[in-house]
Amino acid sequence: MPNPTAAMIVIGDEILSGRTRDSNMHHLAGKLAEAGIDLMEVRVISDDQDAIVGAVRELSGRHDHVFTSGGIGPTHDDITADSIAAAFDRRIDVRDDARAILTAHYARSGTELNAARLRMARIPDGAELIENPVSAAPGFRVENVYVMAGVPSVFHAMVGSVLPGLTGGAPLISKTLRIDRGEGDIAAPLGTLAKAYPMLSMGSYPFQKDGRYGAHVVIRGSDAAAVDAALAELKAAFV
Amino acid sequence: MPNPTAAMIVIGDEILSGRTRDSNMHHLAGKLAEAGIDLMEVRVISDDQDAIVGAVRELSGRHDHVFTSGGIGPTHDDITADSIAAAFDRRIDVRDDARAILTAHYARSGTELNAARLRMARIPDGAELIENPVSAAPGFRVENVYVMAGVPSVFHAMVGSVLPGLTGGAPLISKTLRIDRGEGDIAAPLGTLAKAYPMLSMGSYPFQKDGRYGAHVVIRGSDAAAVDAALAELKAAFV
Repeated sequence: MPNPTAAMIVIGDEILSGRTRDSNMHHLAGKLAEAGIDLMEVRVISDDQDAIVGAVRELSGRHDHVFTSGGIGPTHDDITADSIAAAFDRRIDVRDDARAILTAHYARSGTELNAARLRMARIPDGAELIENPVSAAPGFRVENVYVMAGVPSVFHAMVGSVLPGLTGGAPLISKTLRIDRGEGDIAAPLGTLAKAYPMLSMGSYPFQKDGRYGAHVVIRGSDAAAVDAALAELKAAFV
Repeated sequence: MPNPTAAMIVIGDEILSGRTRDSNMHHLAGKLAEAGIDLMEVRVISDDQDAIVGAVRELSGRHDHVFTSGGIGPTHDDITADSIAAAFDRRIDVRDDARAILTAHYARSGTELNAARLRMARIPDGAELIENPVSAAPGFRVENVYVMAGVPSVFHAMVGSVLPGLTGGAPLISKTLRIDRGEGDIAAPLGTLAKAYPMLSMGSYPFQKDGRYGAHVVIRGSDAAAVDAALAELKAAFV
């Protein structure tokens, strides 16, 4: 059975403008590979309702799971929750269970739960909350779309809340061999090897450092025996 | 006149599998902001011809410029050039001008220009070459799509070859104010300010570090006077 597939949507003008370097994509990609869920596509889009609605509708129809990051805070530029509700034609309002979480959290720190903070309890009808052990304000799931925060520590915690509940396939196994030869010398034998192991994916990533050059050849697949056999053939050919 | 718009397509299984952390997106985003070209969307897709053709056709029709990174090396998994040719229904073959660049480069280092390396001279009909001052093998432009290498040093060099030739709009000016207050306290005044300056974009990015918390509020726009005026109002309200 093929692995489940996933897409990610990173919502954030700060990334497209070059101000912030995204790190959530790399984190999620690694966790999904471990879980045996194939990340097929990532889109980085702006804080714009039409852009969010379009990407959510397209990718949620095409993949088993969609993960979003960003835009669920208390400020005027946090429009993700409303955009997700629009994408699924659901009503959205402050929900009692989410409000209760915020009330308890802010009571502990003696902070006022004002109108802006209460925006973080706006949850689309029928959504399931995602626990946020870092800063309380929950994410949520609507159908196959998991809506999570953009702040890396909170995103990581929410991914940790969600992933154990998903059924993955076989974890992706990835083994790397460093070959101190030009990619142009590696290409032909590697191409032959790739044809001999059609169930594996083989990639060559050149490096150039301190006057040395070569490539890291990565062999990936969910069949551990095949990965090991291919790696042995590659070593025999080059090392 | 609004700024020209752009999209980026990052082609690479190694990024989707979590092996490699992309850095080309952040580099290009910063350079485009300086140049006054609005980066509207980034897609990270796999080394798959259908995925590349689909993304190139959709984004090249929607934006003034499209930049791709990855998949133009000598190995079997480098399928970007052929996929770009397919997206524009063009023939592709080894081209004399590209072959001459490789011949001269490999002659200098005494390296054989074998069949694998010659793959890097496969250029779609009618494309314009993009200079690669790092490792010679050129990128190319087909219509509004700039096809560049994935290795960061080469990608950076190719961006440097391409950007001076593009007509940008007003550079994006971005000013940041750190406010040591919870986002929930910043939200209401900031929302009012954002309404008063509809030509600017204002974002709030919370931080939590060493027991202190607050937000960096970023004001962006191409109207320098408006950015400064809004920043002054924000300072007056909070600092």
